[in-house]
Amino acid sequence: MDENQLRELGQQLRVDSVRAAAAAGSGHPTSSMSAADLMAVLLARHLRYDFGEPSNPGNDHLIFSKGHASPLLYAMYHAAGAVDDRELLTFRKLGSRLEGHPTPRLPWVDVATGSLGLGLPVGVGLALAGRRLEHLPYRVWVLCGDSELAEGSMWEAFEHAGYEHLDNLTAIIDVNRLGQRGETRHGWDTAAYARRIGAFGWHTIEIDGHDVAAVDRAYAEVAGTAGQPTAIIARTMKGRGVAAVQDAEGAHGKPVPDADEAVAELGGVRDIRVTARPPAEVAPRRAADRANGTGSRIKRYGSGEMVATRAAFGEALAAVGDARENVVVLDGEVSDSTKTDAFAREHPDRFFEFYIAEQQMVAAALGLQARGFVPFVSTFAAFLSRAYDFVRMAAISRANLKLVGSHAGVSIGEDGPSQMGLEDLALFRAVHGSVVLYPCDANQTAALVAGMATAQGIGYLRTTRGPTPVIYPADEKFPVGGSKVLRSSPSDRVTIIAAGVTVAEALRAADALAADGIPARVIDLYSVKPVDTETLREAAEITEHFVTVEDHWPEGGLGDAVLAAFGNGYRPPNLTKLAVHIMPGSATPEEQLHMAGIDAKAIEAAVGAMLSTVGS
Amino acid sequence: MDENQLRELGQQLRVDSVRAAAAAGSGHPTSSMSAADLMAVLLARHLRYDFGEPSNPGNDHLIFSKGHASPLLYAMYHAAGAVDDRELLTFRKLGSRLEGHPTPRLPWVDVATGSLGLGLPVGVGLALAGRRLEHLPYRVWVLCGDSELAEGSMWEAFEHAGYEHLDNLTAIIDVNRLGQRGETRHGWDTAAYARRIGAFGWHTIEIDGHDVAAVDRAYAEVAGTAGQPTAIIARTMKGRGVAAVQDAEGAHGKPVPDADEAVAELGGVRDIRVTARPPAEVAPRRAADRANGTGSRIKRYGSGEMVATRAAFGEALAAVGDARENVVVLDGEVSDSTKTDAFAREHPDRFFEFYIAEQQMVAAALGLQARGFVPFVSTFAAFLSRAYDFVRMAAISRANLKLVGSHAGVSIGEDGPSQMGLEDLALFRAVHGSVVLYPCDANQTAALVAGMATAQGIGYLRTTRGPTPVIYPADEKFPVGGSKVLRSSPSDRVTIIAAGVTVAEALRAADALAADGIPARVIDLYSVKPVDTETLREAAEITEHFVTVEDHWPEGGLGDAVLAAFGNGYRPPNLTKLAVHIMPGSATPEEQLHMAGIDAKAIEAAVGAMLSTVGS
Repeated sequence: MDENQLRELGQQLRVDSVRAAAAAGSGHPTSSMSAADLMAVLLARHLRYDFGEPSNPGNDHLIFSKGHASPLLYAMYHAAGAVDDRELLTFRKLGSRLEGHPTPRLPWVDVATGSLGLGLPVGVGLALAGRRLEHLPYRVWVLCGDSELAEGSMWEAFEHAGYEHLDNLTAIIDVNRLGQRGETRHGWDTAAYARRIGAFGWHTIEIDGHDVAAVDRAYAEVAGTAGQPTAIIARTMKGRGVAAVQDAEGAHGKPVPDADEAVAELGGVRDIRVTARPPAEVAPRRAADRANGTGSRIKRYGSGEMVATRAAFGEALAAVGDARENVVVLDGEVSDSTKTDAFAREHPDRFFEFYIAEQQMVAAALGLQARGFVPFVSTFAAFLSRAYDFVRMAAISRANLKLVGSHAGVSIGEDGPSQMGLEDLALFRAVHGSVVLYPCDANQTAALVAGMATAQGIGYLRTTRGPTPVIYPADEKFPVGGSKVLRSSPSDRVTIIAAGVTVAEALRAADALAADGIPARVIDLYSVKPVDTETLREAAEITEHFVTVEDHWPEGGLGDAVLAAFGNGYRPPNLTKLAVHIMPGSATPEEQLHMAGIDAKAIEAAVGAMLSTVGS
Repeated sequence: MDENQLRELGQQLRVDSVRAAAAAGSGHPTSSMSAADLMAVLLARHLRYDFGEPSNPGNDHLIFSKGHASPLLYAMYHAAGAVDDRELLTFRKLGSRLEGHPTPRLPWVDVATGSLGLGLPVGVGLALAGRRLEHLPYRVWVLCGDSELAEGSMWEAFEHAGYEHLDNLTAIIDVNRLGQRGETRHGWDTAAYARRIGAFGWHTIEIDGHDVAAVDRAYAEVAGTAGQPTAIIARTMKGRGVAAVQDAEGAHGKPVPDADEAVAELGGVRDIRVTARPPAEVAPRRAADRANGTGSRIKRYGSGEMVATRAAFGEALAAVGDARENVVVLDGEVSDSTKTDAFAREHPDRFFEFYIAEQQMVAAALGLQARGFVPFVSTFAAFLSRAYDFVRMAAISRANLKLVGSHAGVSIGEDGPSQMGLEDLALFRAVHGSVVLYPCDANQTAALVAGMATAQGIGYLRTTRGPTPVIYPADEKFPVGGSKVLRSSPSDRVTIIAAGVTVAEALRAADALAADGIPARVIDLYSVKPVDTETLREAAEITEHFVTVEDHWPEGGLGDAVLAAFGNGYRPPNLTKLAVHIMPGSATPEEQLHMAGIDAKAIEAAVGAMLSTVGS
């Protein structure tokens, strides 16, 4: 394609963006029009992609970090023949794959975007997969907005990509000067961006993003740049080509005022078809294809041993890594605490140190899973909250993501509340389709970790800092959605439900209550989501009273998970929820459990109060 | 103090850090020892602070962004005579103010730290308060770790402080080379940090952090630097002064092996007392002192008008701003969507544009509230999740923070799930001591906003994108913890509980059910936390069946809030929870409510199913 044809293609992408948004009655055509020439040149001359075979391992990866420019992306698919005109005009309509922001419902989309600052760090993950794991020559192209350069997650990505010398990663920055509500901090000062990004070790190129020859040269320069990622910082105009909206404030996120006029101004509807360059012919070397079993080397712990579940997690993960070469591990500079260091020692090629950059870490995991790997992401439970928005987005991506949060609850002791994950169950239960697991002993932990490695979807495992007694045999099964009834009799007067660190407290309380002549059922609800509805309903038929006890705030944790088993015709039991009601300070683990009112004594007291009360 | 005395003071800070951690049996003495000389010189020669009057408006602000170096901070308080030796040795013990990480339980601490990457962006907020609001000469000093420079939130802060030319802000970066589990990305390459930070418009100074003369000169240079914040990038040694731990891996977060030997090696216990430079004598000009009423100009909406609650929020906030000069507003580059633009127009001096940097935005609010301002922080509900870790930390700070999330739920329509806040109620309910409000009409919104401005603590308000009918008169009262019974009769057979956008659906359903001879109670549960326990229990006495309906995932939202009113002797009702069970795509608001199963038809169907079922 010559320069004139490239310009024509750019105009077509604009026209189709305008048309799609007009048909939808909403959308972001102006944010699409600024980047149209950048994408036209990429599609026609540099992107290596077989749209007929989106799973071709040689395909490049194109991510719209500025996901709101979806009309442009769909216009590219249209030009590539992957989406027909009829479908293009279903944009944003019920049932259409062409959603307001891209999602992997489209086979050419790796991850959902639309939360700004996500696409570039995902690109880092894809580039790491290509470079370190797959040894494939694909390139990763990320179209970024200028507004989103305000997001810290972008700078986590610039830092990590520079540090890893990811020359297979290119950020294309569409500096159209205007954010949603006005000018960005730096307007058209592309040098301000170049200084910053360059300081992080990137090669930078400043160009006029509407000069197709300059754009073409920039992409060629990318191919010739070794040892550094490249940022193409392109000065562009929002709404370029349509006078009514060009470089205008107040034109964000809405169709152009008169679509027919705009299309005419852009030279009318075109039907240019583009065949992207073919991907390199590669023999896939995906470790993903070499996964068998779940780790025969998984350690067995003896009854009564005192072992921290974080330690059992670390051991199990390393063993699972033996059997399953698609398992990769990401940690946020705390692998000696989360205990992923065992995996790091045994599988250094599949261990990724992300330093203290949780957003980049989770986003990279999204990139890695898009290439078929099974990422386990680990840091303190409290600090996973730092990346919550990206976990939210992971659900929209229908991603396969395993999160492991250590140092949960007040039971960590002296470090105090800043280090305590006390809301993690609430956060991860509120992720669409998630699984939330909270083991109490080492054998249970190991079994759950092995299960996570083969399950699909978003899973969260909560581990504990201090040692807890081993209460299960090494070959016990712990299905997702299950529970364990640890004490029961037909004469049970109350059901105590615990998980993790409170299971031992519940057992102690049950023993004391039994000695007082009060038989208590004890359930270990290790699968917090989904819950074992059947077992809980069965218990409610025997005992009217439930006590739940959790090392978590009262909202959204174990107690609420238990209640979720009822309703819809099953009236909930009379439940007393023991949870952390006070803001903790520093203290020993034992003191913390006591002060928070979640130790054995508190359970006993709650049962006593319940049984002396007449339920309403 | 001469250089020798400064060195002696540094040794004292080390000794006291070692002693405190030894007494506690845990803590971070080695991370304290690296920064001891930096802090000795600051305390003795540059910090302007009256430890006897922590609320003196002329006091400088000192934030330990590396909060784990708390032993050093407490050793400084000890040297300043603010904490005695007996208290110093209560470090990390039950009941002590000297927690593992600093909190405002200590009157000299502005905000809790311990989640890395928080202190510097809080410092930006304090510096903005001093510069733009209070016009006070205090300086803000932030001690940062090198590891935490991996956090994107730090770069949001570097960007914002550079952009705002905050020359009253100084970052002191303790480059001790070692993170928790090994070397940082850049080790002792202070030039790597200087390049990056300098590119963001900061003045940078690289020094040997153990050369007290160089440290002193650097602080003097800060005072002479106008128009730019300064970063002092200090090469230091972790565990400096004690051979057993100096520059050693594996010595993070634990007492030194032999405290007595270490103290001897450091020259023994000293009792140097320091009086910091006095604060400038200033007439406080705190807008905080000029707050009366809650806005007589608050708009009144007529019954039946269709008004988006986000619009009513914006109008009310501007009006509240008239009456209360301590109210400040922060937005993340979406003020035309959240509708804080009305406040921005009327009170530009108290409006802060943070661009798309939610972590910096929330952290700045923490800084502003530490100076007595009442910050309203607003962006899309979905994107507030980006700053969740800092909201978590705000609770530990006992902060006064008002969060407002717009575009909640599937009802936003075509933009799709990336823009939908569907987990915000779960997230903000799980914040210790929080208030969560979800208005359904414009008058209710206005009243709740006015109430938020005078309440203490963390409040969250959820607003809706599309218009909803005005159903309340303009002078109706909406206390926190209240609810409104919109339909009721003694013969009610079911209670429908809604909030926000589902209230209109509930009323429609109730009308249809009434027409079918099924009287239904309808409760508007605008106060999602705390809930109106009394009204809900009363309803449960009349109707065995509850239907809750919410534009939110099933976990942690309205339905769970209703159940929280029961238990502890009050058996919960038989509850059917209608919530968003599917992953939405693009569609119109009406289609979204229908697909999610939370519209009037879905409520009617649920009631029908309930009443035909025999409850267990």
